[in-house]
Amino acid sequence: MGDSEVHTAQTDPTAHMATVGCGVIGAAWASRMLLSGHDVKISDPNPDAETILLEVLDNAVAAWDDLGLPTDRQGSYTIVSSIAEAVSGASFIQESVPERPDLKAAVLADIEAAAPVDTIIGSSTSGIKPSTMQATMMHPGRLVVGHPFNPVYLLPLVEVVGGEHTPPVIIEQAMELYRGLGMHPIHVRVEIDAFIADRLLEAVWREALWLVNDGVATTQEIDDAMTYGFGLRWAQMGLFETYRVAGGAGGFRHFVEQFGPTLEWPWTKLMDTPEFTPELVDKLVEQSDAQSGHHSIRELERIRDRNVVGFLKVLEGNRWGAGNTIAAQRAVDS
Amino acid sequence: MGDSEVHTAQTDPTAHMATVGCGVIGAAWASRMLLSGHDVKISDPNPDAETILLEVLDNAVAAWDDLGLPTDRQGSYTIVSSIAEAVSGASFIQESVPERPDLKAAVLADIEAAAPVDTIIGSSTSGIKPSTMQATMMHPGRLVVGHPFNPVYLLPLVEVVGGEHTPPVIIEQAMELYRGLGMHPIHVRVEIDAFIADRLLEAVWREALWLVNDGVATTQEIDDAMTYGFGLRWAQMGLFETYRVAGGAGGFRHFVEQFGPTLEWPWTKLMDTPEFTPELVDKLVEQSDAQSGHHSIRELERIRDRNVVGFLKVLEGNRWGAGNTIAAQRAVDS
Repeated sequence: MGDSEVHTAQTDPTAHMATVGCGVIGAAWASRMLLSGHDVKISDPNPDAETILLEVLDNAVAAWDDLGLPTDRQGSYTIVSSIAEAVSGASFIQESVPERPDLKAAVLADIEAAAPVDTIIGSSTSGIKPSTMQATMMHPGRLVVGHPFNPVYLLPLVEVVGGEHTPPVIIEQAMELYRGLGMHPIHVRVEIDAFIADRLLEAVWREALWLVNDGVATTQEIDDAMTYGFGLRWAQMGLFETYRVAGGAGGFRHFVEQFGPTLEWPWTKLMDTPEFTPELVDKLVEQSDAQSGHHSIRELERIRDRNVVGFLKVLEGNRWGAGNTIAAQRAVDS
Repeated sequence: MGDSEVHTAQTDPTAHMATVGCGVIGAAWASRMLLSGHDVKISDPNPDAETILLEVLDNAVAAWDDLGLPTDRQGSYTIVSSIAEAVSGASFIQESVPERPDLKAAVLADIEAAAPVDTIIGSSTSGIKPSTMQATMMHPGRLVVGHPFNPVYLLPLVEVVGGEHTPPVIIEQAMELYRGLGMHPIHVRVEIDAFIADRLLEAVWREALWLVNDGVATTQEIDDAMTYGFGLRWAQMGLFETYRVAGGAGGFRHFVEQFGPTLEWPWTKLMDTPEFTPELVDKLVEQSDAQSGHHSIRELERIRDRNVVGFLKVLEGNRWGAGNTIAAQRAVDS
């Protein structure tokens, strides 16, 4: 399958980067690239692509400014009409088109028809396995999943997943590319559907849907149970480290011995997913409107970004967690 | 069942509060009460109870100091040898003994034998339904679950759940009592096992156990996927508000239409729980040691508290979420 042709990523620092797809995710990738000093060519058939880009870039500049990261060395962007124009001569390509396997395959074929043969392609997919995407590629070894988290210009996490054709050197080069954009790549070593974070998110989402469906709690109450409680923990220690602390001096073994057995209790509705009946959808929409409808989406984005920037500054000051990613980025910049 | 006797909580502001059980949770309740200016009587058969109290109180004072909340009006504590001594004449009683239904029943009987008949009893249980506990009580109407979150002296959330014998007025009085301790009570209106937050936590815990069990990810990688990604979101907006933003101008209906169907995909391992084999326990313990073993539990507690205090200050500055609880507490104090 041509793996042997893939040895090095093109790393010409003067070459542009490419973003294929310019929705909220693609526009945020482009913003990260631009703010990191790269020129970016962006392709999207949507006539509103530039409007979306400018709105997201506006948020990204405000957030980086607020973080105290330099925003004055922005690269220049070009919106182009074809994938070929975007990727031709590109040093790195990030694909963020909708999550349809057939569409991904067609877009990857267009990318390969015009991109340098050794340019790494990152896919933003949150659910499709890289091996599935590689199956129809000419040079599959240079494809990795690089799954980001909204807001992409601010949250450091990117899950890097190779397929069966991805050699370790490409994983390492992709990780380095993402680090160069100020991110914290995690290598997901086993190729599974939905990777790591979305597996956890899906579990919460299903359980939360049951709580709303069964009339136990509203969207507001569920969100409050997170933001006034365990959400404040998880911005800085994950569940394993949190539970280690809960186990006290006895360590993690004590925690498992004490609380593991309660997993046998019939607590969570894990067996199935509620059907999205019109009644459930209406209930979700009404409750979400009651909870958040007094803010526009744009306002909510700005509030979110201001909060997250504040958290990142706290963590940087405490030399902890995601704050270390910001500190590393600042060190490179200065 | 004597519900009619329960009309008002004893609200003599000079009466002491009582904590029954002085492990990590009970000691943190006592710390909140003391820092809020109440005298507290604490009962626990453990000879180390005072040591535990002083360690937790030390953390709590440091955290409140760091938050800029007053720590100079502390009430006085008394460690007593019997439940009767602790609860006699108490204005409020919080029970935090281990999660065994038979033990809870015996402790509640001891409490009722000595406490004023109209004193509200809050139970810290995270899993036992209040109606189950009320079944053996003389005056069941004054029992509520008041389920807190570690560190109890810092996280504002408390889930308030009434049983079949709890009249609405007692729920409202309990909520007011918890507000007086600087907390954000949520009334869980439907009595279900594990209430709201732990239902969500259990779902994540099970999924995370599968990921470790199957060798997909380590405890460190799973925790990083949270703390560099969605954890930073959930400290300030829950999953529903986050997804509303992701839906863009189309609102929550657009989000559900776009992403709801992916729930049909076979993503999460929801069907069962991995067995806690010695191999799985060893794996969890080894990975947790590798991840966090270079910090003592005490160090991790201080790091956690410093981070959470920083987040709360950010949120207070932005007049958002849990920051509003701190602002309300500060307003009362000034």
